[in-house]
Amino acid sequence: MPKPKKAHESEVTMTEMVLPNDTNTLNNLMGGRLLHWMDICAAISAQRHSNRIVVTASVDNVSFSEPIRLGNIVTMKARVTRSFNSSMEVFLEVWAEDIPAGERLSTNRAFYTFVAVDQNGRPIEVPELIPETDEDNELFASALRRRQLRLVLAGRMNPGDATELKALFDLP
Amino acid sequence: MPKPKKAHESEVTMTEMVLPNDTNTLNNLMGGRLLHWMDICAAISAQRHSNRIVVTASVDNVSFSEPIRLGNIVTMKARVTRSFNSSMEVFLEVWAEDIPAGERLSTNRAFYTFVAVDQNGRPIEVPELIPETDEDNELFASALRRRQLRLVLAGRMNPGDATELKALFDLP
Amino acid sequence: MPKPKKAHESEVTMTEMVLPNDTNTLNNLMGGRLLHWMDICAAISAQRHSNRIVVTASVDNVSFSEPIRLGNIVTMKARVTRSFNSSMEVFLEVWAEDIPAGERLSTNRAFYTFVAVDQNGRPIEVPELIPETDEDNELFASALRRRQLRLVLAGRMNPGDATELKALFDLP
Amino acid sequence: MPKPKKAHESEVTMTEMVLPNDTNTLNNLMGGRLLHWMDICAAISAQRHSNRIVVTASVDNVSFSEPIRLGNIVTMKARVTRSFNSSMEVFLEVWAEDIPAGERLSTNRAFYTFVAVDQNGRPIEVPELIPETDEDNELFASALRRRQLRLVLAGRMNPGDATELKALFDLP
Amino acid sequence: MPKPKKAHESEVTMTEMVLPNDTNTLNNLMGGRLLHWMDICAAISAQRHSNRIVVTASVDNVSFSEPIRLGNIVTMKARVTRSFNSSMEVFLEVWAEDIPAGERLSTNRAFYTFVAVDQNGRPIEVPELIPETDEDNELFASALRRRQLRLVLAGRMNPGDATELKALFDLP
Amino acid sequence: MPKPKKAHESEVTMTEMVLPNDTNTLNNLMGGRLLHWMDICAAISAQRHSNRIVVTASVDNVSFSEPIRLGNIVTMKARVTRSFNSSMEVFLEVWAEDIPAGERLSTNRAFYTFVAVDQNGRPIEVPELIPETDEDNELFASALRRRQLRLVLAGRMNPGDATELKALFDLP
Repeated sequence: MPKPKKAHESEVTMTEMVLPNDTNTLNNLMGGRLLHWMDICAAISAQRHSNRIVVTASVDNVSFSEPIRLGNIVTMKARVTRSFNSSMEVFLEVWAEDIPAGERLSTNRAFYTFVAVDQNGRPIEVPELIPETDEDNELFASALRRRQLRLVLAGRMNPGDATELKALFDLP
Repeated sequence: MPKPKKAHESEVTMTEMVLPNDTNTLNNLMGGRLLHWMDICAAISAQRHSNRIVVTASVDNVSFSEPIRLGNIVTMKARVTRSFNSSMEVFLEVWAEDIPAGERLSTNRAFYTFVAVDQNGRPIEVPELIPETDEDNELFASALRRRQLRLVLAGRMNPGDATELKALFDLP
Repeated sequence: MPKPKKAHESEVTMTEMVLPNDTNTLNNLMGGRLLHWMDICAAISAQRHSNRIVVTASVDNVSFSEPIRLGNIVTMKARVTRSFNSSMEVFLEVWAEDIPAGERLSTNRAFYTFVAVDQNGRPIEVPELIPETDEDNELFASALRRRQLRLVLAGRMNPGDATELKALFDLP
Repeated sequence: MPKPKKAHESEVTMTEMVLPNDTNTLNNLMGGRLLHWMDICAAISAQRHSNRIVVTASVDNVSFSEPIRLGNIVTMKARVTRSFNSSMEVFLEVWAEDIPAGERLSTNRAFYTFVAVDQNGRPIEVPELIPETDEDNELFASALRRRQLRLVLAGRMNPGDATELKALFDLP
Repeated sequence: MPKPKKAHESEVTMTEMVLPNDTNTLNNLMGGRLLHWMDICAAISAQRHSNRIVVTASVDNVSFSEPIRLGNIVTMKARVTRSFNSSMEVFLEVWAEDIPAGERLSTNRAFYTFVAVDQNGRPIEVPELIPETDEDNELFASALRRRQLRLVLAGRMNPGDATELKALFDLP
Repeated sequence: MPKPKKAHESEVTMTEMVLPNDTNTLNNLMGGRLLHWMDICAAISAQRHSNRIVVTASVDNVSFSEPIRLGNIVTMKARVTRSFNSSMEVFLEVWAEDIPAGERLSTNRAFYTFVAVDQNGRPIEVPELIPETDEDNELFASALRRRQLRLVLAGRMNPGDATELKALFDLP
């Protein structure tokens, strides 16, 4: 079994400039383009943790509340939060900046999961993740709840068995 | 208030061929690229329902269970399931085909939400959706539950108030 | 010899959104970009009919009479009209929509031909096509005339031998 | 009326390297990608003749007989052959080279037509073209016949009136 | 005159994954594609220092000694080294990683210069740069010599006047 | 040893139209995009001289003094100036045209160097270059000086030994 690794070892920073083809007719970044960048950034983070080829297993609910404009700089930071056998959850934060205007906004947060695979595409075990900061610890703990939600939504877990998830509703 | 529209009026079929730049080192379609295509397909569906410019508000949990290969044909079908004031939920189904091999697989299902906006980017009312088929009716009904889950996950609804969502867990 | 297939089995619908890089300085879709999309859509249709890898053999005269604007939705429908040994003729129709303006225009019609090939790129026999609708029958019949025109224009048929083509000019 | 211009003043040479995303699963250049490049090359030639913004009006039958491989160099040469009020016919020749193998093949010939437009997209008169070489003269003369074919194919000329075109069939 | 800024305030990290279209027929990243990424990364750094729109003024000699492979992760770090009225020198370092193989190589170092401009494209004054680390101080000092080399190479400075540059050759 | 080749045999002309995604927020071509095009054009020239796969070894200082606008036509001409064992220096000139405005500007000059390699990526000898025109002769002679500058800047030559380079400063 591979040696456990610390959370910060998987950290990745990716920066993109919003170009015309990334935008809709209002000159705002299209949501799908951002999801594409986030997938690449998160995949590199999962690669760093596992030292393996990785394939996207899922993306959790992502909401887009702030328009990101043509010419803005988009910064993404990704970090593995927890591993489960061959899969890893990656947490991403996204900021958009209009640098000449001196504006910087937190625009998105997302969780992607990846599976590490060998050269034939078969799942392969990954290192355990060691959380370091308070935020790491909080994300490590809540990863179980998010995992149950994914399994329930994919029809692979009976909602009645999702004990961690029920806690979200403050229910016994 | 705009005149209600039927579900089939918003139907969109989009077809893409998986090219080298869409793939990872295993020659499989990258998840983020598919999310990008799905966003465009779903946006066109929301445009058809609302006859407005639309912006992505959210994408629900999407899981990727089947690898899609270089050279495969990806077909996406999108359809609005329900509208809420200025927002619309769009349901997408994705199939991948290896046509020379005669293989066709259902690979993904997803829900995107869009907000209709005017030329200044301000939300604007959209038509009610009239479900037609049995599946339309089922999706129309369950849209409330998915909406509550989005609001809870975005921290904009108290889980205790998510009555539809609790039903998912068979809870009072 | 492969089993004949019906016309509708090869039908493909492809949808594209006109993005900034697809347009000229008047913000209209460039003709070459549309020809590129049409080639991919027609190739998928020929793949569906033949269940083979296909390569473009020719495109017939295409005219561009209506400007298609930035942000418009382009819908292409392709269908095989007739097969000849290892080659297939594909008919495409193209529409452009400005959905917020509620406008939809038929903009182009085109005929592409494809050759089915094996893994080494050698031509290989394809199924006969069975026309179904009245339009299918009309296109099936006129395919001979278009084929003669292609052969004459490529210098591979003596114009005097192009009996079907002469009929176009009401000549003996 | 603008001053006539010589054929060589509109000459354009364009060179492209065939990259992975330009190819199909046999690693050959896709026909539609080549049509896209040819359209840009021909448009620049028509711009040079007219000193105007130009829009593609049509492309004549193009056939693809030779596969062009990944890594090949594609060279296109375009030149205006004749002008008609606001429209211009452009002749293109295409060569593909595998430089390390010392191979160079003539792969395609095509005729595109363009219309010169003002800033509002309205057609505007272009200079007459003065042919210079023997080939220029031959192309200038045969342009009438190709124009009639385009008009007949577009349903805008009665085949019986296409006197130049009939000559192709050696008919009275 | 704008308030001086510290070197670390302009730091930018950009991460890219090498995709098929970025590579040559040996599956190595093409030099020009890397220069393109480096230009964007350096431009964002110059934007951060100046809070202005910036345009590339020059790139100094860049050498490519190590092949970077398809699927590798490229990380670029950029930081402003010194400003001169309206121009800024940016220093970039580039690393390539084959993460599954656990390899990481320093592959390139480069200096770009940018000019800050207003909305009409006219040069505008930028803050002075305050070096912080030992490396910052070394780069700040040597920026004069590199600037003289640029001016000499552009024919805008008499080599005999390039006092800093002569020092490179240990000449009086 | 391969047979010497003349300078004009390596000449390449490449033409590009500046599209929206190539431009910054001032609608001017980004420097990095031009460096990318120049690299491809120069690589083809080095291929023509050597009939080999080539990899970029370096680009010398490039300055960008003139803005190139959206919709402009960029023409690049490349030609090998001298070869050294397995490496070649390529000289490029770049012009930008606003054809409707009848404007054409010389915008850049650059020197790239390439190394010819075999299928395993190992350097391989290239033909000597035979200069033809006066400009060819001048570039052939000055290639030594530029080569010394590259070696000094890469830390692979002691500045005191760069005899050709010192001549630039009119020093003994």
